[in-house]
Amino acid sequence: MTEDLSNIRAEIDALDQALIQLLADRARLTARVGTIKQAHRLPLYVPEREAALFAARRRQALAAGLDPDLVEDVLRRVMRESYASQEARFPATGDLDRPIVIVGGGGALGRLLGGFFARSGYPVRVLETGDWPHAAGLVENAQLVLVAVPIDRTQEAIQALPALPADCVLADVTSVKRAPLAAMLSRHPGPVIGLHPMFGPDIRSLAKQVVVYCPGRDTAGAQWLLDQLGLWGTVLREESPERHDAAMVMIQAMRHFSTLVYGAFLQREGADLNDLLRLSSPIYRLELAMVGRLFAQNPALYADIILSAGPLPELVEGYRECLDELFDLLQSGDRGALMERFDQVRDYFGELAPALLTESGELLRKAHDGRDP
Amino acid sequence: MTEDLSNIRAEIDALDQALIQLLADRARLTARVGTIKQAHRLPLYVPEREAALFAARRRQALAAGLDPDLVEDVLRRVMRESYASQEARFPATGDLDRPIVIVGGGGALGRLLGGFFARSGYPVRVLETGDWPHAAGLVENAQLVLVAVPIDRTQEAIQALPALPADCVLADVTSVKRAPLAAMLSRHPGPVIGLHPMFGPDIRSLAKQVVVYCPGRDTAGAQWLLDQLGLWGTVLREESPERHDAAMVMIQAMRHFSTLVYGAFLQREGADLNDLLRLSSPIYRLELAMVGRLFAQNPALYADIILSAGPLPELVEGYRECLDELFDLLQSGDRGALMERFDQVRDYFGELAPALLTESGELLRKAHDGRDP
Repeated sequence: MTEDLSNIRAEIDALDQALIQLLADRARLTARVGTIKQAHRLPLYVPEREAALFAARRRQALAAGLDPDLVEDVLRRVMRESYASQEARFPATGDLDRPIVIVGGGGALGRLLGGFFARSGYPVRVLETGDWPHAAGLVENAQLVLVAVPIDRTQEAIQALPALPADCVLADVTSVKRAPLAAMLSRHPGPVIGLHPMFGPDIRSLAKQVVVYCPGRDTAGAQWLLDQLGLWGTVLREESPERHDAAMVMIQAMRHFSTLVYGAFLQREGADLNDLLRLSSPIYRLELAMVGRLFAQNPALYADIILSAGPLPELVEGYRECLDELFDLLQSGDRGALMERFDQVRDYFGELAPALLTESGELLRKAHDGRDP
Repeated sequence: MTEDLSNIRAEIDALDQALIQLLADRARLTARVGTIKQAHRLPLYVPEREAALFAARRRQALAAGLDPDLVEDVLRRVMRESYASQEARFPATGDLDRPIVIVGGGGALGRLLGGFFARSGYPVRVLETGDWPHAAGLVENAQLVLVAVPIDRTQEAIQALPALPADCVLADVTSVKRAPLAAMLSRHPGPVIGLHPMFGPDIRSLAKQVVVYCPGRDTAGAQWLLDQLGLWGTVLREESPERHDAAMVMIQAMRHFSTLVYGAFLQREGADLNDLLRLSSPIYRLELAMVGRLFAQNPALYADIILSAGPLPELVEGYRECLDELFDLLQSGDRGALMERFDQVRDYFGELAPALLTESGELLRKAHDGRDP
């Protein structure tokens, strides 16, 4: 028996070694695809091509007696790597003789974006707190001034800018869009565009990352910048500043606020976090991780997102009323009324509820692959 | 250029075909390992072996110039499949001539567990609502009576049980443990054990799933059941009923309650969910999915978990106080005080905060692999 098992395990070892070699060969081939795309200014990420590739591989998986989901999951993970390795050398759509100036380029997001511009060959200049006295020299001949300072200093930084070249693009990456856009439009008569990258500084690849943009003035003059983001693999979503800001109060401010409340609550109760994790199913572990991860990040950033969201207090009022209503049901022990309230929310979520269950279920299975209980 | 690209893509196609073949060969080998383990009653999941395998593969990945994380992620996904395919045929540790009776075996969790017993060769009998008149006949010669009815009917079902064979194990799978365990101990003088499977009925494999168990009486007499769960790949965690219940009020009841509140809040605000998703980063999409998934599930189950958690109202009081405190800070616009509160929670999370950030960050990257923007 032990001998049988050892023989089979030796065969599995050999297969795994062949698998690793194969993945290394594939990485070399996709790097060559990257070089050719770079030379011909072709976009990194083409959704239709990716979809066609997966459809073909799924058919092949079925023919080989494998679960198509397994093959698709493996290839998606492999392709993440290949996107990340391709984009580092991606070409410029702008003028490589004119500098990109990142205001607040020493911050985490500023450094990340500056790195992408630099790897595409642009001369990148950073305008940090101490550099304002020679700001006029720094923006000389600039083709883009990108404001990436903390949200509470965005207005101030925009107003303090010296005159920019007439065709220079003025853009920002703040997580609110109305106020910065208005400030940029009044400061600079040339092309103006508001950007909101929907990712944090811990991403490794721009492929498939969403960037929301709000046109300000002369979008044609800023087209090279949008093209550049597209070449790096981002997915661009146009939105008005008003709709953007309304959605972000919910997506960011309210969510961060309620996470902060939950963290404060766990602390208040003195919950033994390690004990909770030891007894947790993958889903609760993930929920606890979604709370805990907030507190490993920059307090100033989150305080500013929360405090700069104008309508947040009204939302919190509404949230409190929902809490009180459900608390009453809980205290009355009215099972029927609680289930009815549940059903109302279910109707509101509609078809999205089962879709989100499936989506998160698959993700939890992936979380579970890595579980070390 | 087009020709170059076509040639390389043809090479990638060939490599992918070889990859699929290799995965199919590997699946056949691991199926043979499963057969041998089955014949010799060896456990499906051995943490040390898995850890040693990954360490070796990571070294090979480095030698081939690949990111070790890529190879580990791919293999973990492949191994999930191999666990699932192996366990279906796993052997019995109990007596295959004596029936397993599942009380409430028509429910989702009852069906799932009954299926595992059946596939291991046990005769499985179901005791459903209409079967009580002939319950005495159903439990005749049973080696296990497993109570898997909804939480609000557990006590009642246990009390209604007929006399069981003296060495029969009486167990339940309710998500609270104190009350059912007391009821089982008073109903049956033989082996008694409380189980809490920390997973929902949508799992596909028991490998690495946590089952908490609370010893009641004669754990030695129930050892075959614990062994069986271990052979199926579960990770067993012993806990006292008191500590279990205290942790679960936080892990399950409070979390479900606050998710219900958040869902009710989104409905109240009439938030356009599709709009929110369109503008969302992967992390907010996941947060929204964690809320939405609740409402695709059984309202009665969640109402019962919430209503049967004795100390929940006190916790909700505490949560409300945290909400009020932070709401005051928000309305006063006191940035410094808000950041200070943030820092206090950060201190409470301690080293777990960055660990949870890393863990969830990796999971978000996986979520992103599959994103179809």
